[in-house]
Amino acid sequence: MTAGTATTHHALDWVNGTAPRLQERVRRIPPLAFVENCLRGVGQVMFMNNPLTGLFVLLAAWTFDPWIGFGGTVGVVVSTLVALLMGFDRGAIHAGLYGFNGVLCGLALATFLAPPWDGVATVWIVAVSAGSSIAMAALAALFGGAWGVPPFTLAFNISVLLFLITALHAVRGRVGELIVPTPPAVTGPTVSEALRESATSAAGTDLAAVVNAVLRGISQLFFVNSILGGILILVGILFCSRIAFGFALVGSAVGMGVGMALGADGTAIYNGLWGFNSFDACLAIAGVFYVLTWRSALLGIACAAYTALLFGAIASFLGPWGLPAMTLPFCFGVLTFVMLKDASPRLFTFVPPGEIETPEAHLRRARTVSA
Amino acid sequence: MTAGTATTHHALDWVNGTAPRLQERVRRIPPLAFVENCLRGVGQVMFMNNPLTGLFVLLAAWTFDPWIGFGGTVGVVVSTLVALLMGFDRGAIHAGLYGFNGVLCGLALATFLAPPWDGVATVWIVAVSAGSSIAMAALAALFGGAWGVPPFTLAFNISVLLFLITALHAVRGRVGELIVPTPPAVTGPTVSEALRESATSAAGTDLAAVVNAVLRGISQLFFVNSILGGILILVGILFCSRIAFGFALVGSAVGMGVGMALGADGTAIYNGLWGFNSFDACLAIAGVFYVLTWRSALLGIACAAYTALLFGAIASFLGPWGLPAMTLPFCFGVLTFVMLKDASPRLFTFVPPGEIETPEAHLRRARTVSA
Amino acid sequence: MTAGTATTHHALDWVNGTAPRLQERVRRIPPLAFVENCLRGVGQVMFMNNPLTGLFVLLAAWTFDPWIGFGGTVGVVVSTLVALLMGFDRGAIHAGLYGFNGVLCGLALATFLAPPWDGVATVWIVAVSAGSSIAMAALAALFGGAWGVPPFTLAFNISVLLFLITALHAVRGRVGELIVPTPPAVTGPTVSEALRESATSAAGTDLAAVVNAVLRGISQLFFVNSILGGILILVGILFCSRIAFGFALVGSAVGMGVGMALGADGTAIYNGLWGFNSFDACLAIAGVFYVLTWRSALLGIACAAYTALLFGAIASFLGPWGLPAMTLPFCFGVLTFVMLKDASPRLFTFVPPGEIETPEAHLRRARTVSA
Repeated sequence: MTAGTATTHHALDWVNGTAPRLQERVRRIPPLAFVENCLRGVGQVMFMNNPLTGLFVLLAAWTFDPWIGFGGTVGVVVSTLVALLMGFDRGAIHAGLYGFNGVLCGLALATFLAPPWDGVATVWIVAVSAGSSIAMAALAALFGGAWGVPPFTLAFNISVLLFLITALHAVRGRVGELIVPTPPAVTGPTVSEALRESATSAAGTDLAAVVNAVLRGISQLFFVNSILGGILILVGILFCSRIAFGFALVGSAVGMGVGMALGADGTAIYNGLWGFNSFDACLAIAGVFYVLTWRSALLGIACAAYTALLFGAIASFLGPWGLPAMTLPFCFGVLTFVMLKDASPRLFTFVPPGEIETPEAHLRRARTVSA
Repeated sequence: MTAGTATTHHALDWVNGTAPRLQERVRRIPPLAFVENCLRGVGQVMFMNNPLTGLFVLLAAWTFDPWIGFGGTVGVVVSTLVALLMGFDRGAIHAGLYGFNGVLCGLALATFLAPPWDGVATVWIVAVSAGSSIAMAALAALFGGAWGVPPFTLAFNISVLLFLITALHAVRGRVGELIVPTPPAVTGPTVSEALRESATSAAGTDLAAVVNAVLRGISQLFFVNSILGGILILVGILFCSRIAFGFALVGSAVGMGVGMALGADGTAIYNGLWGFNSFDACLAIAGVFYVLTWRSALLGIACAAYTALLFGAIASFLGPWGLPAMTLPFCFGVLTFVMLKDASPRLFTFVPPGEIETPEAHLRRARTVSA
Repeated sequence: MTAGTATTHHALDWVNGTAPRLQERVRRIPPLAFVENCLRGVGQVMFMNNPLTGLFVLLAAWTFDPWIGFGGTVGVVVSTLVALLMGFDRGAIHAGLYGFNGVLCGLALATFLAPPWDGVATVWIVAVSAGSSIAMAALAALFGGAWGVPPFTLAFNISVLLFLITALHAVRGRVGELIVPTPPAVTGPTVSEALRESATSAAGTDLAAVVNAVLRGISQLFFVNSILGGILILVGILFCSRIAFGFALVGSAVGMGVGMALGADGTAIYNGLWGFNSFDACLAIAGVFYVLTWRSALLGIACAAYTALLFGAIASFLGPWGLPAMTLPFCFGVLTFVMLKDASPRLFTFVPPGEIETPEAHLRRARTVSA
């Protein structure tokens, strides 16, 4: 935050943007501050440094499936605690940067391990979330040192994929029915494009199917598969940034569109699997990492499309082991477009990771500079 | 180009080396300059910054199969246009550095998608070639920033492989018959070493088979499988550099030799699949990235052999998805040997990417410095 | 080595620590110096810059299987020779840094190729070991330049895996019976956890099985599968460092423990496959790369556990091609924890690669500095 913005004290600063007044107040009460930092960590999956965003995301997870909500909550708490114990950078921990991988680890393992509320599965959630904070610190040094960019959710992806692929051959692996190793084959000609909730359900009306695909495309980022979940998460984003809210919807729609253009499996599209990586990538490029202009809006849309292709590719690559693509497509998609920061300096204004606030704040700063 | 060489104005400068007079003249006529930059892009696949090299390569592609020639032409035009629109570095665009990935994307997709002259396949060629320019800019920043080396044809490989692996499971993927997913197995004992054009043809005389393997090993870099194609491409190289011409032949022969020494499939060797990565790697090391000496000539041969091993490995690794090795072996082979630049400074004189011209010009500069 | 330690001349300096007096003496006799450098190379697999460590490791290999001992010996000699011929850094060669990848290449190929004492297999050992020195120089530049960390045994892993995966489909590949491509599947529920020497042997008493797992976990780093081998290697480590000796045992036990906690295949655990990556990673973190404290001891244990998970994951990932995990888990595990050097500077004292000696020497230096 710049000195200039710190002097303005609106009542909205309790809930709006990065909610600076809320952070100031709870900082004096350690247990509250810890909870607040964890909630920011949940929001940071979408670059929303706001505890209310995180609260609405957790609400979406708990209402969709309490076991998944529990997994995510354990994940963010454990990963933030480990970061504190390891003495990692306090500023980063306060901004939630050691929580976003952990919450995703918990949500993912609660989704892919079985049965729910299992003690052993909970041990794995704790262990993998803890490991994700170590991986995050290492990857942040790797990416920051060489290229000045963050490692996004790579620590989550690596940690969970390492665990799941090991678990295939372990007695106590607790691998659930969603993990189905399948040998590669050319299945394109036999794929059913019809948008529908499951293979056995009837294809819905076009508009309803599209609404499902777009909103589930939001919720699937957190392993939640429901329209209500998508709406709750969007409301959470709204607290932090109206710009991000808009590009979340646009990005999810673009991801869906790429899947439909290619003729991908309609059930996967309906359930939001082509949308969740794209929406996060879209809002990251259009406003967060580049100051919003009509050019960076187009760049965000291009990044959403590129990320959708990456989803198709990585899901297909991991198919033989039965592993899901997780948010690897988002990581590589955003990394590619963020690395353009020095290639087109006249067209796009890059926001260095250390100066990221909200898309709205970036716009204000850019106008102040150019005025 | 150094100030010293710019003052010499031979008539040969219209066609020889980097053809500087040709570039000077067409620069004033935008449409001609664009065509010239695209042709340089085609030549840059082999580090030949000369539009005539590119012209002969396209001639080889069009005469081998007009649909493949069309694909390559669309690819180089689209990728160069996207680079202009994105405001990427003009000097790099003029030297063809935003064209070489695009032309390979077009040639590759025209080869692996089916049927020929299909509208949907053409859309994919346009989209993937466009994406390859974005990937190139990102990878150039990644590799240049951390290590001072170029990303070679990685952007092409990544873009096309991402598309093809996605296309396996897409209704409109247009995957052709060359993509055959095959589970890994130890097939060595059953492989037929006999050099022959196809599994059903008779094994030819030794000399004819070797000539086929070496010349098709040149043409296969551009997805052309013919002796005529190999000769046309070699003539194209001759315009730019006699040294590169020599090491292209040596490198293709070394790649073939490694394949034969291992006892690889004779049909693949006959059709040049063991040669195309090695020849490009050989000429890159022996003259382009290291000033030609007898030592760097040996290093180029070693790199050609190493690249051939990489071809065998990557083709085997990608077998389960039915994907081809593309030019990934070339990328990793050349990268490995280029990264030796600081390990043996007394034995090899490295030419930094920004100062690359032709092997002959590097020799002249090295002699001027040491004189 | 710092100026301060160089002035102390104990009689023990002939065999203890980095054996500086031995190195001083043999430096004047080139053939002896070469042998001494090769032996240091063998010890450097475990960061033990001491020729006696290397001697005991080779003793373990030769007594386990002369063909494997021969392979390792050829590997270290060839890779060190190639580094000398290529003009790589003399200091690094003298410390054995161009030998440790080569010895592993030789040991690995002697293990995985068949039949023993085969001429063609010996040619592959020579070629791959030679290539590993090129790869080492390139990777050292890649990792050192961008992050200031060494590439560990990545050159060995890459070189051997490239060869083996190519060899699957080559008439003269000489792939032995240990390479069994297997399609991925969820086998967890059917895995037998009982610790036993082979699938057909009876499960031993608990203590005997644990002793086997821990000691074979030491020897397996060098493709030796025996208790005697483990003891010989531990004795070799003792010459160089008592601290490393302790953490080798702890690390091997931690690796075994993680395997048992997950419920991995008991035969693999009994034969030390879950221990060899973890023990090397454990001693690297607890004493070599971080000055030994109770905190870095815990960090070493955490790294051993993380590396064990990586072993399970990489072995599972490479299963379709029938390839072993080699020491890739060690590489990625240690890299992750070494990259924490800047994330927790108050808790852990990092030893830069160029200043590495022995854990004991690091402790002495740290005490001198803080005194």
